[in-house]
Amino acid sequence: MTLPVIGLDEIARVATPAVVFAAVRDALIAHSEGRTSVPAPMVLDFPEHSGDCHVKAGYVDGSPYFAVKIASTFASVNNGLMLVVDATTGAPAAVLADEGQLTAWRTAAAGALITDAMTPADVDEVAVLGTGEQALMQVQWLRELRPLRRVQVWGRRPEAVDKLCAAFLADGLDAQPYADGGAACVITTTAAREPLPVELFRSAIHVTGIGTDMPGKGELPVSVFEGALVATDDHAQCLDHGDFGNAVRAGVVADNVDLAVGAVLRDGMDRTRRSVADLTGIGALDAAVSAAVLNR
Amino acid sequence: MTLPVIGLDEIARVATPAVVFAAVRDALIAHSEGRTSVPAPMVLDFPEHSGDCHVKAGYVDGSPYFAVKIASTFASVNNGLMLVVDATTGAPAAVLADEGQLTAWRTAAAGALITDAMTPADVDEVAVLGTGEQALMQVQWLRELRPLRRVQVWGRRPEAVDKLCAAFLADGLDAQPYADGGAACVITTTAAREPLPVELFRSAIHVTGIGTDMPGKGELPVSVFEGALVATDDHAQCLDHGDFGNAVRAGVVADNVDLAVGAVLRDGMDRTRRSVADLTGIGALDAAVSAAVLNR
Repeated sequence: MTLPVIGLDEIARVATPAVVFAAVRDALIAHSEGRTSVPAPMVLDFPEHSGDCHVKAGYVDGSPYFAVKIASTFASVNNGLMLVVDATTGAPAAVLADEGQLTAWRTAAAGALITDAMTPADVDEVAVLGTGEQALMQVQWLRELRPLRRVQVWGRRPEAVDKLCAAFLADGLDAQPYADGGAACVITTTAAREPLPVELFRSAIHVTGIGTDMPGKGELPVSVFEGALVATDDHAQCLDHGDFGNAVRAGVVADNVDLAVGAVLRDGMDRTRRSVADLTGIGALDAAVSAAVLNR
Repeated sequence: MTLPVIGLDEIARVATPAVVFAAVRDALIAHSEGRTSVPAPMVLDFPEHSGDCHVKAGYVDGSPYFAVKIASTFASVNNGLMLVVDATTGAPAAVLADEGQLTAWRTAAAGALITDAMTPADVDEVAVLGTGEQALMQVQWLRELRPLRRVQVWGRRPEAVDKLCAAFLADGLDAQPYADGGAACVITTTAAREPLPVELFRSAIHVTGIGTDMPGKGELPVSVFEGALVATDDHAQCLDHGDFGNAVRAGVVADNVDLAVGAVLRDGMDRTRRSVADLTGIGALDAAVSAAVLNR
């Protein structure tokens, strides 16, 4: 058996934003319509090396491929790959040695798609909470979908805030540290385990939370959900360990108020309503972007 | 990233029976002592292609590697591979493109080890029920551990029975179709979903069942468990979907009578007792044989 191992350079050449956006959008809609298979992930812990490994799998019905993703984090260093398997024969088709970038891109694409779909069309200012890779990418990918004028950055470490502001300025955005008043559109990208300060959301018409990707995490103050239109990428998963679940358990919203992110992307929504999108990450997106890469 | 893909020829050169037996024995003992990590497997179904894919992962504490196994069966054709990951850094170390053979070998080794450990030393005749790959291999690997004189073969298709007998005869064994009376040692290797005929176990002092590897299967008549010393490769898994679980639910044995296979291998047992070993297959064995291959 020969199994091609495709490196990041080659992957990056074909996985353009247009390709990733299309694959992620289709997969989110398919997932909302029950046309995906996403088994519960596996987790292996290696406390002696400050490490863990998450194994996720996913399939979009009718796709030529499904994907199994191995994503490890040891001493804060991410590693992993995607194994792409032929969905008509079960034969391994390729290893995408993507160094975690396909996950970063599909997360950025999913966030940008739903942020754009739920935020009023005239909003051109966002506040991003967190200063990691996704803080940068959520804004960069959102700019592929709508023009942005200004970004405010909030984080606990001033030097990280300054560094991210410099990156946005280099991209031609008016960027500055978070200032009182905030923004109409707030994107949260932290690894928080306790809610972020509620004041940060004071001006928010729309909030997209992408940081709460596993049990034990939580970014959004539950009051953000009060009276808001809620969209979740996966109802059961967001109820189990997303910010939506935290709000439900706090009694702020009922457990059945959420729309599927894919349904919002497909049908649109009343963007004058205050809204929250809770993204926990679904394996079907990995399968979709992997298949898109392999198809090219 | 360069990721070596190691093919079956190279794997077969290093995975000698001695290497596989040692790795499997150590892993079974480690598992019995709680020194392994084995998350619940993932399953993806592809009914339109008569296919399914099982993803299993496992780790033996302290090993330099853990393994993620992708095993698919589409239209009765098996496929898959093992991904071996560095357990100190999380970096993918190699793909073992083993065409399912490492699973076959570790299953054969585990069965042979426990059959040998639980069957009286002077027994040199076995009956094997089933005519597939494992029917051949369970006997071949048992012969690495003890001399066998005679084998009886039982199956539903006479031509498959004759073919397996011919293979054993070529190996220098006195082989014949199952005859009335049976054997003191019975090994079941079928994909049965209903218990095999109880008469086949009439002369059995020891029974090893390896075919009941997923929910819905079941080989052993529950009466085989009555008064027998029982060993399981994984207590919870055998209770959930092994033959042991079937016997417990039938009220034939209590749910806490079983010994761990690893404990029997480590400590030995009273081999004059009638006994049953229920093997459902555990991911830690995949990790152990994968690590053993990569270490060489």
